[in-house]
Amino acid sequence: MIDLRSDTVTKPTDVMRKASMEAEVGDDVYGEDPTIKKLEEKATELTGKEAALFVTSGTQGNQLAVLTHTNPGEEIILEENAHIYLYEGASISAFAGVQPRPIKGNKGSMNPIDVEGAIRSEDIHFPETGLICLENTHNQSGGSILPLDNMKGIYELAKLHQVPVHLDGARIFNASVASGISVQTYARFTDSVQFCLSKGLGAPIGSIIAGSTAFIEQARKWRKRLGGGLRQAGIIAAPGLIAITKMIDRLAKDHEHAQALSEGLASIKELSIENDVETNMVVLNVETTGFTAQEFVEQLKDYGILAGAIGPYSIRLVTHLGISNDDIHRVLHSVREMIE
Amino acid sequence: MIDLRSDTVTKPTDVMRKASMEAEVGDDVYGEDPTIKKLEEKATELTGKEAALFVTSGTQGNQLAVLTHTNPGEEIILEENAHIYLYEGASISAFAGVQPRPIKGNKGSMNPIDVEGAIRSEDIHFPETGLICLENTHNQSGGSILPLDNMKGIYELAKLHQVPVHLDGARIFNASVASGISVQTYARFTDSVQFCLSKGLGAPIGSIIAGSTAFIEQARKWRKRLGGGLRQAGIIAAPGLIAITKMIDRLAKDHEHAQALSEGLASIKELSIENDVETNMVVLNVETTGFTAQEFVEQLKDYGILAGAIGPYSIRLVTHLGISNDDIHRVLHSVREMIE
Amino acid sequence: MIDLRSDTVTKPTDVMRKASMEAEVGDDVYGEDPTIKKLEEKATELTGKEAALFVTSGTQGNQLAVLTHTNPGEEIILEENAHIYLYEGASISAFAGVQPRPIKGNKGSMNPIDVEGAIRSEDIHFPETGLICLENTHNQSGGSILPLDNMKGIYELAKLHQVPVHLDGARIFNASVASGISVQTYARFTDSVQFCLSKGLGAPIGSIIAGSTAFIEQARKWRKRLGGGLRQAGIIAAPGLIAITKMIDRLAKDHEHAQALSEGLASIKELSIENDVETNMVVLNVETTGFTAQEFVEQLKDYGILAGAIGPYSIRLVTHLGISNDDIHRVLHSVREMIE
Amino acid sequence: MIDLRSDTVTKPTDVMRKASMEAEVGDDVYGEDPTIKKLEEKATELTGKEAALFVTSGTQGNQLAVLTHTNPGEEIILEENAHIYLYEGASISAFAGVQPRPIKGNKGSMNPIDVEGAIRSEDIHFPETGLICLENTHNQSGGSILPLDNMKGIYELAKLHQVPVHLDGARIFNASVASGISVQTYARFTDSVQFCLSKGLGAPIGSIIAGSTAFIEQARKWRKRLGGGLRQAGIIAAPGLIAITKMIDRLAKDHEHAQALSEGLASIKELSIENDVETNMVVLNVETTGFTAQEFVEQLKDYGILAGAIGPYSIRLVTHLGISNDDIHRVLHSVREMIE
Repeated sequence: MIDLRSDTVTKPTDVMRKASMEAEVGDDVYGEDPTIKKLEEKATELTGKEAALFVTSGTQGNQLAVLTHTNPGEEIILEENAHIYLYEGASISAFAGVQPRPIKGNKGSMNPIDVEGAIRSEDIHFPETGLICLENTHNQSGGSILPLDNMKGIYELAKLHQVPVHLDGARIFNASVASGISVQTYARFTDSVQFCLSKGLGAPIGSIIAGSTAFIEQARKWRKRLGGGLRQAGIIAAPGLIAITKMIDRLAKDHEHAQALSEGLASIKELSIENDVETNMVVLNVETTGFTAQEFVEQLKDYGILAGAIGPYSIRLVTHLGISNDDIHRVLHSVREMIE
Repeated sequence: MIDLRSDTVTKPTDVMRKASMEAEVGDDVYGEDPTIKKLEEKATELTGKEAALFVTSGTQGNQLAVLTHTNPGEEIILEENAHIYLYEGASISAFAGVQPRPIKGNKGSMNPIDVEGAIRSEDIHFPETGLICLENTHNQSGGSILPLDNMKGIYELAKLHQVPVHLDGARIFNASVASGISVQTYARFTDSVQFCLSKGLGAPIGSIIAGSTAFIEQARKWRKRLGGGLRQAGIIAAPGLIAITKMIDRLAKDHEHAQALSEGLASIKELSIENDVETNMVVLNVETTGFTAQEFVEQLKDYGILAGAIGPYSIRLVTHLGISNDDIHRVLHSVREMIE
Repeated sequence: MIDLRSDTVTKPTDVMRKASMEAEVGDDVYGEDPTIKKLEEKATELTGKEAALFVTSGTQGNQLAVLTHTNPGEEIILEENAHIYLYEGASISAFAGVQPRPIKGNKGSMNPIDVEGAIRSEDIHFPETGLICLENTHNQSGGSILPLDNMKGIYELAKLHQVPVHLDGARIFNASVASGISVQTYARFTDSVQFCLSKGLGAPIGSIIAGSTAFIEQARKWRKRLGGGLRQAGIIAAPGLIAITKMIDRLAKDHEHAQALSEGLASIKELSIENDVETNMVVLNVETTGFTAQEFVEQLKDYGILAGAIGPYSIRLVTHLGISNDDIHRVLHSVREMIE
Repeated sequence: MIDLRSDTVTKPTDVMRKASMEAEVGDDVYGEDPTIKKLEEKATELTGKEAALFVTSGTQGNQLAVLTHTNPGEEIILEENAHIYLYEGASISAFAGVQPRPIKGNKGSMNPIDVEGAIRSEDIHFPETGLICLENTHNQSGGSILPLDNMKGIYELAKLHQVPVHLDGARIFNASVASGISVQTYARFTDSVQFCLSKGLGAPIGSIIAGSTAFIEQARKWRKRLGGGLRQAGIIAAPGLIAITKMIDRLAKDHEHAQALSEGLASIKELSIENDVETNMVVLNVETTGFTAQEFVEQLKDYGILAGAIGPYSIRLVTHLGISNDDIHRVLHSVREMIE
């Protein structure tokens, strides 16, 4: 099977498994797991923040940021297709008691003027604006990259209004590799950042949040409340450490594959590509084929290809560690055959 | 002073005050206040629901509906300028733990297709859709009326998807008087409805929510938790009873006044009217005068007129019990003088 | 009917009703109700705090204190029979997200050593201690008075640990009149205080919370979120103003009546009194009569007397504005007759 | 170092590490991790429930049970030293919005009469009783076992009152091995059960909750909201699978060691044992030595022994996979030397 549904399906490499097997471990609730410590130190360095914390998922990292930055009855400004808003089970409201204030963006980027317009003034009827959330790369826009200037513009006005900024950087390394801008540079324009060790970087489990020392200390306590305090966590930190030391550069390959896939598909008359393919995602439109996305996906399965319908005629294809150059060719070949 | 900021500034009439003075009272936490009972019975009848409950404000009524209809982690579909979303301090998230899902409307009406599109399917990443909220008349659209067909369309698809519907009918009597459609008819297309005894109806304090017997029973308990359980509440129920028995028809006067005000202002070259004046609100645009809304409002004050700036060049003027025909003439005269 | 169930059943006096009728009013959400302002000023003075806020009930006042003083995930230390813990629908957890930490008291007074022992140290597993709540007089102990020294002792250790203290003083004026200690003196040993205008003081609706200016400002916003922001609230503030200017001293009468009632009942062989009658409550034990409390209460009803069963053999009798000396005699007479 | 602080410090065995390395994995958010599935099936079987779910910690399992069984504004009855109440950061209130109702127990067992007395009747002032929580073995009582009859008694009255029961069985396998009663039998008297794969069973990370199919389905969604949805989770499920297939019987060894340790320490004149040593915990009292628990623990460290002070003069010693017979002898030898 060629699995293009998501980069979350990547399986750990043998090197990662071996590292896990040999990892030095301790009780991380007591702060005694040496591998976790190494991972958190390396993540601190990569993000240029004061401290970092291992968490079990991107959702957990984002929720910790919201719980730590905000108070109940506040409002969070975010792009209207943000993962935090649409794909995290309304946790920001259920747990942190805050209300999302979605703003229409352009390929995931919010106009700083719109963001500033959404910041609340003081009025007895209004929630206070407690946080601004960005997402880079932006999943729902097909992995598009938030321009650094856009992040900078929003960050500066946020500081002016004394509102913290959180970056959902689940795929920030994809943005970094594609744009040539370091994660540290991106992270300069945000108070906290979450990124995933799984997905493109290939670790089996886990994400990181990074921020100020005080932020991480509070987030650590909220993590315990969420049940995210682990014991001998080194066995999953070890693959994570490999993810951020050895696996970053290879994301360029995923982007090349996505590019090749996109171009190949676009050359087929009945198909078109909906997104600017900037990183590892291709959004394919199949309306002209006469099939719905769901039907198209079903047929792909018969060719040993898995993909995800994300709209009536839209299909998302994601490249990752488990997808080779040959796979791309096989997919293109199969689609051509299928269409004919 | 001619106070056009809001219809919330209406003062109780002498008849209301006298009724309050003579009201038979008891401890309403024990269910022993006869005047409250009378008010709740009359409200039940007016809305055609099974039961009704007195609450201290429209916000409290709306919040009780949300607390009663939903569970934490769910999502509420509402129009993007809904009062519940923008003006209630993010209480739906702070107290009920639910997330708003705002939809762009047209004069406050959501397209049923958009509403249906926003109802969540079953997916581990998604909140469940727990409630759809409507607002009639729609405050932020300048008191526009939700067409009955629109309400019906949304209600029917809501039933199809087994999602309850709540109507923020703070000014539903304005809608009813203007459209000739009874409140009972409007309420037929909603599971619960909140309306205000204050505002145009002139009572000093209080609102009503109505719904099924089971809904009201649960809402009563949530009201106690919010600290809205009152003792000898008859003294404020008595004016409320007058509000819904004697004050409804006179809303037509407020609408005439708004119409006259709107036409008079529109006839002044530098001014324009932003809204369709369907009930008791006029939204004035002053951009061409060279003044900001804030400056314009300041100058009106010197003429003994109070109004509210609601945008950079937008001013809201609301007619009510305390505004006479003469007042409208005086306002028009003053504005003309001011502009020249 | 002689209604001894609670002092919450008191009906407003004619003077109160007249004051309500003549009250100068305005829109209190805009801060424009002059009678509310007068009431809040007078309450500020009486408590010796910087500011005060009118709320619709004691529960609302207590909940506002908790919402304002604490953050979710914290713990509140309170006496194991505190009203906030047992009779407010778990609102402290439902709305403020805080956990009660009940402590066994003696007639409602917690031992300062126990309080200090319950304050949490810093540990990743522990909630932070966010508030200590006192209750004076203590309802469940039969209206017993918290000694000033006890309050002082707890307040001092609270300051040492930088934990705020809230006083549920629903009946603090009963404590004050009985002990001769001013409310201002009691309030010196607490950061915020709530007291009721209804109950013994006879107003139909409402309570007050008082505290620092910053505390009240935040509480005002939380009140709006709870739906406790009122419009022409002067009509209920006016009786409240009379309650705290004219009705305080007369509480002594209620205490005399409770004393007389207690002594009279104790003189009946089959009956005993469970509480030290320090203010306006008598807790009667009827076990020796062969009747359950519920049965006893039912029979009292036939004599035109209402009382409340609060345990298998325990009945609470509360004196108030609506109970005269003659009523006490009638009650004693009836009980004697009933027993025989 | 001989680490007796907790059984949470156990390190995974080589067999576990190897299993992890070779584990077949998939994306568990998509339900495609075969090792997780095997683990959940085995756990289902062991508990005799309909379904089971892997979670990252005992705290997460307990919180999921509370979130799934209850609604905000309800009350949970639990023993006054329960882990859920004292050691989980007030999460039950912060996230689920429910209030604990602690009851004094005897070695962790609540008297069913007390439990029944604490179940709330219907009253507008009262929270509804939403859950009863048990803990077996009971950590704060030194690993004491809840008698099956006690569990049965509470479960039966709970059913009578239609209140669900949750068992915090973090160490239920210790109870089972010591009592000879199967986990399935214990689980029969509870609607949901959580147990830890880490602790005595030696897995590095994770716990299980089990219950009805509907319960687990809902819990799975709440787990996603908490950020506990994992990707290639098989690498931590594999050691967990070994924990529940190969490591249960060996708990008997830990109990023998605790017994030997307890007897040895008790034979030293200045020392006494506070708990009945029923499983793998010894609570040592050092008051007669003239040292505080903290001082005593510090000195033990110089002998290469780690233990935890849990009271002014109380020290907890926990046996586990990492503690051998020799270690026990060394500890006894060291303590004797130290005392002299």
